[in-house]
Amino acid sequence: MNINKMKKLTIVKVGGKIVEEPGSLRKLLNDFSKIKGYKILVHGGGRSATAIAERMGIESKMVNGRRITDLEMLKVVTMVYGGLVNKQIVAGLQAIGVNGLGLSGCDLNYMRSEKRPVTDIDYGYVGDVKEVKAEILVDLILKGVVPVLAPLTHDNSGNMLNTNADTIACEAAKALSVFFEVTLMYCFEKKGVLLNENDDESVISKLTPSLFNQYVSESIIQGGMIPKLENSFDALKAGVKQVVITRADLIHTLGGTWIEL
Amino acid sequence: MNINKMKKLTIVKVGGKIVEEPGSLRKLLNDFSKIKGYKILVHGGGRSATAIAERMGIESKMVNGRRITDLEMLKVVTMVYGGLVNKQIVAGLQAIGVNGLGLSGCDLNYMRSEKRPVTDIDYGYVGDVKEVKAEILVDLILKGVVPVLAPLTHDNSGNMLNTNADTIACEAAKALSVFFEVTLMYCFEKKGVLLNENDDESVISKLTPSLFNQYVSESIIQGGMIPKLENSFDALKAGVKQVVITRADLIHTLGGTWIEL
Repeated sequence: MNINKMKKLTIVKVGGKIVEEPGSLRKLLNDFSKIKGYKILVHGGGRSATAIAERMGIESKMVNGRRITDLEMLKVVTMVYGGLVNKQIVAGLQAIGVNGLGLSGCDLNYMRSEKRPVTDIDYGYVGDVKEVKAEILVDLILKGVVPVLAPLTHDNSGNMLNTNADTIACEAAKALSVFFEVTLMYCFEKKGVLLNENDDESVISKLTPSLFNQYVSESIIQGGMIPKLENSFDALKAGVKQVVITRADLIHTLGGTWIEL
Repeated sequence: MNINKMKKLTIVKVGGKIVEEPGSLRKLLNDFSKIKGYKILVHGGGRSATAIAERMGIESKMVNGRRITDLEMLKVVTMVYGGLVNKQIVAGLQAIGVNGLGLSGCDLNYMRSEKRPVTDIDYGYVGDVKEVKAEILVDLILKGVVPVLAPLTHDNSGNMLNTNADTIACEAAKALSVFFEVTLMYCFEKKGVLLNENDDESVISKLTPSLFNQYVSESIIQGGMIPKLENSFDALKAGVKQVVITRADLIHTLGGTWIEL
């Protein structure tokens, strides 16, 4: 299948309010449809999960920004991510002629994980990805199908597991880099990584490992952006061509911060 | 693709408690896995939808046994059918080596519907099936994939629609009868259609249109079973080889009521 090595594949990860409000979702899907070449959409849905859980009288517990997924919350995220958010996105894509197919890890057994071991924190029913069957995605993509990946995996023993959408996107990107020239695009609320956090226009257009180290030592890059960028460099080392951090409305442009080795 | 005309395909529709309780689901999936040849599983999930809706403070309204699906209830069924129930089934199938793929109508645009026109009753966001892209299912089935169909369709304008699971099974069966010798199996709580409703063992082993008419005139068959059987004969006239009405634990046997022209 290396014949496709030079073909471009763009994996876009979006989360937050964008996919959870009809107006912004429609705009996003339109922008996404303008991306040329093969593509995959990976979505979150944490706000909806929290909102639905609250209506059901289930409290959302977070540690370090990560959700603690007990058995009740696992049902909520399976419903909300695999059903509500995923199907709304796929239906929205079909409406504009993009042949979406919603997938959770259990579907076609495409992404297997193992329940995260309990250390000082028990995250509950959260899966660490162990295997991505890239060939399954390749087969679909080459037929013009656009996989829409929910942040859910399974352990191949009958249990669904909650898995961070960034991780899903990153693991899919790494596995697919054997077959395609992969661009991994993370959307967040800013136009890119900023030189000055108070100036939304101060986007760093390009980041390399040496520039990254320099900016970290100068405290220009700090906080939660550091692990995000470290993960991006790991993806690049694993074969991903480039990682782009940008705002959702810029995904079909060349805007944002481009991260390369 | 008529080359597959003689290949057997079994479409099993299960609903109710069976797919919504872990123990009975495991048993069902085991029995389902024993069915030889190509197969599709179609599931309901109404009890879970009602239970989740209730926890969310949403009242379930039913008319003639059919759910009225307002916008809030549409979200609930999209979550519960497309997410919770569908993914639990697919994960359960993968655990026993059956390559399940969950599909709602929007996925691959395989089943399109139109919102039911309002007559004396407004069913709300309920879809009447208008198009089944059988080729999409054929392609998957021939690869050894077992589609797991949720009772959800879409209107190809971005909206999900609630659609009765019996209808999903029947429409899929009719469309696929061009490509396969299709057996459509409806599971319910009895071993089959009964000669005497007070004797669970009095299963009518075979029903033809003339026998059906006779039993109806003798009031042996009555009530909700009449439209169910009329729909079965319609499916047979549309090309389905046989319809079987049986109990879930008998799907891999030759038990139940076999309906043929």
